[in-house]
Amino acid sequence: MMNRKTIFSLSLLATFLISTQSLCQSDEDAFFIKDIYNHSLSDSKAFDWLTILSTEYGGRLTASAAAERSVAYTKSLIESLNMDEVWLQECTVPNWIRGEKELVAIINSKSEGTVLIESTSLGNSIGSGPNGVFAEVMEVRGLDELRAIPDDEVKGKIVFFNRPMDPTQIRTFNAYGGAVDQRSRGPAIAGSKGAVAAIVRSMTTLIDDVPHTGVTIFNEGETYIPAMAISTSKAELLSDLLKKENIKIYLENHSELGPDKTSYNVIGEIKGSTYPNDIILVGGHLDSWDLGGGAHDDGAGCIHSLQVIETLKALDYKPKRTIRCVMFMNEENGLGGAKAYAKESNEKNEYHMAAIESDAGGFSPRGIGVGGETAVFESKFQHIRPWRDLLRSYGVDLTPGGGGADINPLKSQGGLLFGLRPDSQRYFDFHHTKNDNIEAVNQRELELGAAAMTSLVYLLDKYGIDGGK
Amino acid sequence: MMNRKTIFSLSLLATFLISTQSLCQSDEDAFFIKDIYNHSLSDSKAFDWLTILSTEYGGRLTASAAAERSVAYTKSLIESLNMDEVWLQECTVPNWIRGEKELVAIINSKSEGTVLIESTSLGNSIGSGPNGVFAEVMEVRGLDELRAIPDDEVKGKIVFFNRPMDPTQIRTFNAYGGAVDQRSRGPAIAGSKGAVAAIVRSMTTLIDDVPHTGVTIFNEGETYIPAMAISTSKAELLSDLLKKENIKIYLENHSELGPDKTSYNVIGEIKGSTYPNDIILVGGHLDSWDLGGGAHDDGAGCIHSLQVIETLKALDYKPKRTIRCVMFMNEENGLGGAKAYAKESNEKNEYHMAAIESDAGGFSPRGIGVGGETAVFESKFQHIRPWRDLLRSYGVDLTPGGGGADINPLKSQGGLLFGLRPDSQRYFDFHHTKNDNIEAVNQRELELGAAAMTSLVYLLDKYGIDGGK
Repeated sequence: MMNRKTIFSLSLLATFLISTQSLCQSDEDAFFIKDIYNHSLSDSKAFDWLTILSTEYGGRLTASAAAERSVAYTKSLIESLNMDEVWLQECTVPNWIRGEKELVAIINSKSEGTVLIESTSLGNSIGSGPNGVFAEVMEVRGLDELRAIPDDEVKGKIVFFNRPMDPTQIRTFNAYGGAVDQRSRGPAIAGSKGAVAAIVRSMTTLIDDVPHTGVTIFNEGETYIPAMAISTSKAELLSDLLKKENIKIYLENHSELGPDKTSYNVIGEIKGSTYPNDIILVGGHLDSWDLGGGAHDDGAGCIHSLQVIETLKALDYKPKRTIRCVMFMNEENGLGGAKAYAKESNEKNEYHMAAIESDAGGFSPRGIGVGGETAVFESKFQHIRPWRDLLRSYGVDLTPGGGGADINPLKSQGGLLFGLRPDSQRYFDFHHTKNDNIEAVNQRELELGAAAMTSLVYLLDKYGIDGGK
Repeated sequence: MMNRKTIFSLSLLATFLISTQSLCQSDEDAFFIKDIYNHSLSDSKAFDWLTILSTEYGGRLTASAAAERSVAYTKSLIESLNMDEVWLQECTVPNWIRGEKELVAIINSKSEGTVLIESTSLGNSIGSGPNGVFAEVMEVRGLDELRAIPDDEVKGKIVFFNRPMDPTQIRTFNAYGGAVDQRSRGPAIAGSKGAVAAIVRSMTTLIDDVPHTGVTIFNEGETYIPAMAISTSKAELLSDLLKKENIKIYLENHSELGPDKTSYNVIGEIKGSTYPNDIILVGGHLDSWDLGGGAHDDGAGCIHSLQVIETLKALDYKPKRTIRCVMFMNEENGLGGAKAYAKESNEKNEYHMAAIESDAGGFSPRGIGVGGETAVFESKFQHIRPWRDLLRSYGVDLTPGGGGADINPLKSQGGLLFGLRPDSQRYFDFHHTKNDNIEAVNQRELELGAAAMTSLVYLLDKYGIDGGK
């Protein structure tokens, strides 16, 4: 039996050993993460890749020729990274076609006469056809307000959704989340009440002439009506005019939904040396809207993910766990790629120990959100919380609340989901517009995003998320 | 005598009261800071003001007509804010004149022939005159390297300073700090060793064709030589050529230093109701380089400071301490305004309890640096440290290491110095170039900077920095 003194000494020694070990580990980690940042900021390929992706393969609307060409391009990129395996994964995607002519105009108002309104059709909606729609406009500020109006007051009208994004939200994604139901569900609800078309204020806090597209959703059995976004400047004008007089609008567009098509997720994998069944996924989505180059949304996320691999390879890092880089197809208007990926993964009983999505732009990283099933989240988050100190010196915090549209279906596998959280102030200046081009991306900011993700992948690979191995 | 139980109960009560009080205060502060952000993000004048300042009063080089006009403009702005007092403070400033023609060219190289190099004269240097300088180029990477070279090898040459900014620094200001001695002191040291001119690689991590100006310093008795910055792309080319052959450059510019002039700091003040002798200064510098609009450097800092006042006034806040808004003249090439301000302040035995400078651009704020005399810093920083929790929810941290060129002379008064720390990734894309214009500024980012400064001013005013009052 040990006496008290012995126990005390042993416990001191243990404390010493633990603290020594953790000190050394922490130093080693700090040095490796510094290497990651050094490489990302001085020898990264990210900006050149994104320049090509967003200019030569811009406007990668799901099912379009550009999207299919971008599959081939990013497959060739991923192949150049010398991973263990690269493949395309089939998925079924909607085939929405914008059509050529898009026109919204105020006709013969008393004070302004006829005014052309900058506009763009909403994804997955159908067009008016060549005869257009000519009808009186009614403004609402939200879905509940519309629901409360008797159907006969809506019937035959063009419903104008005009609730602005709240500029006082610090994270602009919260402002987006607080307004976007008008775009995603407003047209279907308007259609169900007899409206002949819907127009939606663009999702941005800027007041300018640039319309922002995006998906709108008509569920089975709902009445399709033409649905277009209009610029915020003209939304303001229209709202002002409606305070003074009845306004009629002519709207014409030619969108259509063709039969579904087959497309592909682009995937590369490095097999883990010790725990090959623990998968760490990094990904973004390859499709974009057609108006711009899809540089921030989500070329940046794809390139971030590719750069993670390039950096680990350049530093000759051999992962213990399997690292998979996935460029998902069809996040914008159907999530066909995400559904196919999750289905096959679940059928194979895969375990995504961690999935990291970058789909918030290529801006300076401020943090990484962390999420997961309620039952497992707290203990796993406690385990990785000490990594905050390593990341904070790079201005990156780990905060609860993470994931992303493409990886959320993997949550039920019991791992952690992460979402890169770049500075969000500029995102909705460009989001879903003709201006989402490489000129809006700063090279260093893009590289820092990749470095933050790479650092997290390194820590996840080295330590897991359970403290067990 | 109280029994133990009574003591325990009293102490519980005290704890309760203290925690209730601090909870209430903290809530009150959180609400007020939320009001500050709400106003700044929805009703701010900052972006409109900066648009006017950087377009109609762009290129505010000290002693230029634009600088003098900007004094009048910002005085009118500050007068519109209904402060207790507004005044101009005289200061003596250098009168550097760029001159019209600026030319640097590689002449007749074997592999590239004659190559025009994008260039710009450095502030406070003198020109070559109409005959120019035509001489062989020698490249160095730093001042020490140059100092170690025998004078007779330098004599008659054009010294080319080509140490790049280190891209692996996370804060680009550190990279700037690690390279800028070549610009600020290189030419004088080259001159002292017999060089006939100096050219300096532009201070940016970008490789592009845009030259960056900036001040160079010749102390009394040092030999003035022509000194110009060249674009990074041509610095790379020149360096490549020098590896293969001797290169001669023709350089011509017409800069001159006229006799000193009188200019002005623009100052407004709200008198404190309770502690009028505790001064809280917010400021930026009004002068800029002449090439661009001076939007980030430092129009943003001036407008931040004005917006602090506008927001406090809009929220009907009555400060206990004196709040002074100062737009300093001549930060870029002489600090004439800062010197005059500190001199008068010290003569009047003023106490700047706090001085906050914004001179790092109008980007998303990441933090506020805090500095002060070593003897007092630690205790005062401990006192304000709890404010971090209030500011962190807005993505703003308080970190040791603050101040700014214009306010540093006030440190000896024993207060705290603060420097707004915006995200620095994009700053040196524009710094001191023709591209430092309003197009490079994002409205929300600018407004968030003003809100962070206003929140700090509010806390400083309410609680002081000593815990005493």
